[in-house]
Amino acid sequence: MSETFPNQPEHPRPTMIDVARRAGVGLGTVSRVVNGGHGVRDETAQRVRAAIDELGFQRNEVARALRPGKKSTSLALVLGDLTNPFYASIAKASLEIAGQSGYAVVLGSVDEDPEGEKRAIKELVSRQVAGLMIVPDQGDHAFLQGAGVPVVFVDRPATGIEADIVMVDNEGGGRIAAEHLLRQGHERIAIILAPSYYTIGRRLRGFRRAHRAAGVEVDESLVIQLPEGNAEAAEKATREVMLRPDPPTAIFASTNFLVEGVLRALGELGQEPAVVGFDDFRLADMLPTPVTVVASDIAELGRSAARLLLDRASGTDTRPPQRIVLPCALIERGSGERPPSAVNRKAQ
Amino acid sequence: MSETFPNQPEHPRPTMIDVARRAGVGLGTVSRVVNGGHGVRDETAQRVRAAIDELGFQRNEVARALRPGKKSTSLALVLGDLTNPFYASIAKASLEIAGQSGYAVVLGSVDEDPEGEKRAIKELVSRQVAGLMIVPDQGDHAFLQGAGVPVVFVDRPATGIEADIVMVDNEGGGRIAAEHLLRQGHERIAIILAPSYYTIGRRLRGFRRAHRAAGVEVDESLVIQLPEGNAEAAEKATREVMLRPDPPTAIFASTNFLVEGVLRALGELGQEPAVVGFDDFRLADMLPTPVTVVASDIAELGRSAARLLLDRASGTDTRPPQRIVLPCALIERGSGERPPSAVNRKAQ
Repeated sequence: MSETFPNQPEHPRPTMIDVARRAGVGLGTVSRVVNGGHGVRDETAQRVRAAIDELGFQRNEVARALRPGKKSTSLALVLGDLTNPFYASIAKASLEIAGQSGYAVVLGSVDEDPEGEKRAIKELVSRQVAGLMIVPDQGDHAFLQGAGVPVVFVDRPATGIEADIVMVDNEGGGRIAAEHLLRQGHERIAIILAPSYYTIGRRLRGFRRAHRAAGVEVDESLVIQLPEGNAEAAEKATREVMLRPDPPTAIFASTNFLVEGVLRALGELGQEPAVVGFDDFRLADMLPTPVTVVASDIAELGRSAARLLLDRASGTDTRPPQRIVLPCALIERGSGERPPSAVNRKAQ
Repeated sequence: MSETFPNQPEHPRPTMIDVARRAGVGLGTVSRVVNGGHGVRDETAQRVRAAIDELGFQRNEVARALRPGKKSTSLALVLGDLTNPFYASIAKASLEIAGQSGYAVVLGSVDEDPEGEKRAIKELVSRQVAGLMIVPDQGDHAFLQGAGVPVVFVDRPATGIEADIVMVDNEGGGRIAAEHLLRQGHERIAIILAPSYYTIGRRLRGFRRAHRAAGVEVDESLVIQLPEGNAEAAEKATREVMLRPDPPTAIFASTNFLVEGVLRALGELGQEPAVVGFDDFRLADMLPTPVTVVASDIAELGRSAARLLLDRASGTDTRPPQRIVLPCALIERGSGERPPSAVNRKAQ
């Protein structure tokens, strides 16, 4: 906590918290008013300015005080391939929130490369950003402990450091997908898994839970772990499993890229098992059979992370590391509502 | 030009250009070696280091000299909605190139809002970036003249300032699309236009040229200017034009988002005119009728812009403003190869 001004420890002056309290608003609002007032109602802005005047602050003092110990008004965002719409949504949303508080976002994009990620993070820290948002890779993140800036992890936690994490309810999402298929009588459901990220493990756990609750045993030969998390690998695995003597009647694809590969393979084979994807994607509703997905608000993932990081960076949020979990919901479009008997409809 | 060291004007010392010449490489390579050597072959890196030693430089002097007058190793990138794959590709590619030279990228994303764009640019300039890559909005950009940093425009030129521009051959792309449709006997081709960006105007010009060359008159009632550049507007316009007594037998959708709206409308109406889109998009080949598009290498757009900006920022490229134009090519997938007689096939 350092809301008081530096260099004046002897005379306890009013702090930004006093400004916020007097105006009856949050510190984020004070920050926005000082930084131009975008997204703040006139009346509210006036109240904040009045409080600042009454407490005898200069506006640039306020701006400084809202960034104690740091002059930086940049946040860093480290995530995967921006052409994956999942990452693009997070980037867009966090940029919006940061911008509203006068913060710029420095971007580091590293795709599935723990060493590259580490390098990118260290590089960004050396640029004295006010905080880091990271969609972490699987490596150990203990090296972040000495970074001296707040860190918020997005989408998945990291090992080696205690920090805020904003994520979706992966286990719940996996459960919802499996429940939906089980309810329609499917008992042989394949699950196509990207390499072992935390998120994927949780989706599998939910998938198993739903089976247990329904009294249906998971056929372990249908739990398919891909060597790579791309559409090509999913296409190959789908072809293989569908050509077995006893193919599944339904497939749960654990990421948006994997569902593309699953559908490509099924199109070639002329088979129509039920398909449920994880994460919604553009044009899902326009494919020959519109695709049922488990979806969550990815933009909100980015917004929540940016808000939390700004509060950490300004020192207004000093709680222990938080864990924010956003819900998932099923979007029924057709592919996930095929009955177990539909598998070979086209092939007959 | 300021490759010589500051504070030593009296004794003309060897410059970075001398290092590059002696090593037989470009200045970009010298920069990469000094910044860690990523993406440079061992043998080349050794040559560069030898040249640096021979000329009596310290490595950090070299690094400094490569960024004359600026300590900054950040570039700014200002573009539209990151969830548009077009912008995401540019961002990803320019990040890669900047990263290879040890530069970070600060991102400003502003969607079709000239005032917001101006604010974002000024904000980024105040952060003392080494250069700006901008996908410009339509407003006047004369305010950039005093920015004191190099600017490279991406995808479209801006008014009010002379600067480098990297773009695709929009006119050629429009021509290719129309030629393809005309060759198949279409004479009533609608063109769906997003609001009047430079790029869209050029695509229309190419469209008209192809008609003129083929001796086919453009029916001006089929030149459809949308109020907004989104899928919804394109869907509405397509519905209207297809319900006219004399509908077109082919449609050219001038952006990737517009083609989505066109296809939605046609799906509802059960009509199948030929369709060609501009810019490729994910899943285009998986739609009920795979979509023919005019495509260009969008990632190369980002890479070229970043390379050019780095050379401007380092002072190694002092040519007058350049204009780099990347070619377009047709990808035939089915929707663009329907004959004029196919329009009402489904509706019969």
